[in-house]
Amino acid sequence: MELSVQLHMDQERVDRALEDYASQWPDHGPLREAMTYSLMAGGKRIRPVLTLAVCRLFGGQVETALPFACGLEMVHTYSLIHDDLPCMDDDDFRRGKPTSHKVYGQATAVLAGDALLTAAFSVLASAPLPSEQICRGVSVLAQAAGPAGMVGGQILDLLGEGKTLREEDVVTIEALKTGCMIEAAARLGAIAAGSTPEEEEAAATYARKVGLAFQIRDDVLDVLGDAGELGKPIGSDQTRQKSTFVALKGLEACEEWVDTLTKQAIQCLEPFQNKEFLCALAQFLADRTK
Amino acid sequence: MELSVQLHMDQERVDRALEDYASQWPDHGPLREAMTYSLMAGGKRIRPVLTLAVCRLFGGQVETALPFACGLEMVHTYSLIHDDLPCMDDDDFRRGKPTSHKVYGQATAVLAGDALLTAAFSVLASAPLPSEQICRGVSVLAQAAGPAGMVGGQILDLLGEGKTLREEDVVTIEALKTGCMIEAAARLGAIAAGSTPEEEEAAATYARKVGLAFQIRDDVLDVLGDAGELGKPIGSDQTRQKSTFVALKGLEACEEWVDTLTKQAIQCLEPFQNKEFLCALAQFLADRTK
Repeated sequence: MELSVQLHMDQERVDRALEDYASQWPDHGPLREAMTYSLMAGGKRIRPVLTLAVCRLFGGQVETALPFACGLEMVHTYSLIHDDLPCMDDDDFRRGKPTSHKVYGQATAVLAGDALLTAAFSVLASAPLPSEQICRGVSVLAQAAGPAGMVGGQILDLLGEGKTLREEDVVTIEALKTGCMIEAAARLGAIAAGSTPEEEEAAATYARKVGLAFQIRDDVLDVLGDAGELGKPIGSDQTRQKSTFVALKGLEACEEWVDTLTKQAIQCLEPFQNKEFLCALAQFLADRTK
Repeated sequence: MELSVQLHMDQERVDRALEDYASQWPDHGPLREAMTYSLMAGGKRIRPVLTLAVCRLFGGQVETALPFACGLEMVHTYSLIHDDLPCMDDDDFRRGKPTSHKVYGQATAVLAGDALLTAAFSVLASAPLPSEQICRGVSVLAQAAGPAGMVGGQILDLLGEGKTLREEDVVTIEALKTGCMIEAAARLGAIAAGSTPEEEEAAATYARKVGLAFQIRDDVLDVLGDAGELGKPIGSDQTRQKSTFVALKGLEACEEWVDTLTKQAIQCLEPFQNKEFLCALAQFLADRTK
């Protein structure tokens, strides 16, 4: 199946499942509305699509991986809500829409993030999988999102603002802040499929490469891109004095780096059948213009 | 064993285990320090002690319940950090110590809360228990802490400020905001012990009664108590125009209500052996002066 068709089908599947979970949350004040506003704000669903694709690669049933995929997307969404808060990155817009605290106020935005993070683990625990696999999924997601992963990266990112960081520091921050969750997306797909440890490690390495390429491409687009398409003002990283890959290495070196990482990611999948979608996905993310 | 001895032993056991978990968090900026500051800020450990006591009641090994107890306490601690934020209750002190955002700033306080909530699920997943029991534990904790529980209660509480609420609304808010987590503490102990559904429900009912009595007693102490002992200014609920049980029913009726609930809680345990500690604990919480 062509990449765009499969991608669209998986994105739709994730969107429908997320809407279904959201409909089950109770109606306390503006909480459900705020949670749903950010969850359905037009994300590209890269992470949950990766979970489904890795599950399929290793012969698993996509339906069994869907709660893992949706839980991970809820955690990703909470992190965006909290990152946008005035005390953090202080962003008024994301994907062209006002951020949660601009619409609902800071208190509700904090709580909507908290609720999405917590609900994610309810969703994981409900997966139609053996308990051993669910436990591993909970552990992988909590590790990737916690102090040794995404939250750790976010605090290092905040500390680094206004400072000139070395390339290795920027790589570490991005690996924690973004890479851990992309790696977790792949691992969750492998766990849902009941893959071997070797299969899971191959998928994890693929995801780390794709994740870093994704982040470098983001920096490139932040300099090159079109404000309307990216949904945030051009050069916003520069304004906030963040050390980006482009600032460290220049545009051309970054574009080559993305190419190399993408080739390496595709190589990780060499031993496996039915890898076409994941190979095409890596290339699609590397080539994207928004 | 006398209540105070067992209580002190269990509190110590929880403190040591929490310190042990905290020592394993990575050292990214001020994150671990901020997480540990709030986690070890002198909490009474009522919830984790309840988990251990219920596990013991139903013949379980306390060591197997310790990760459940500690994970729950991490979730409770995160909720205090976020509740104290300027955009929420805006409290500068808790238990006589400056709150997280006063010491570390708002961004770190938000992230320390996020990290504690996430790490809690890593801790649960590491319990030395069969996967089925861990999955149930994850599900119970996530439900109790999420939009249908604690976070739902917090948003209703914020919405209710400055309004005159009916008694049933105050009961609902407190049941969600505080009661769900106290009930979850009991359920987690029962799950760790591998109890029967009937045993778990009896412990859950006991905990709901104790939890409501605890909250009413808190309101009473807010009016009666001594500022130094309670660690927050006297009458702070009144200042913030919260509808409290005392405001609704008066002091005397509240004290009677605490008595009745405590007697009912103790009755729930009637069928069980070795219930002395939990009976004494209910009475101890009802009679406390701080």
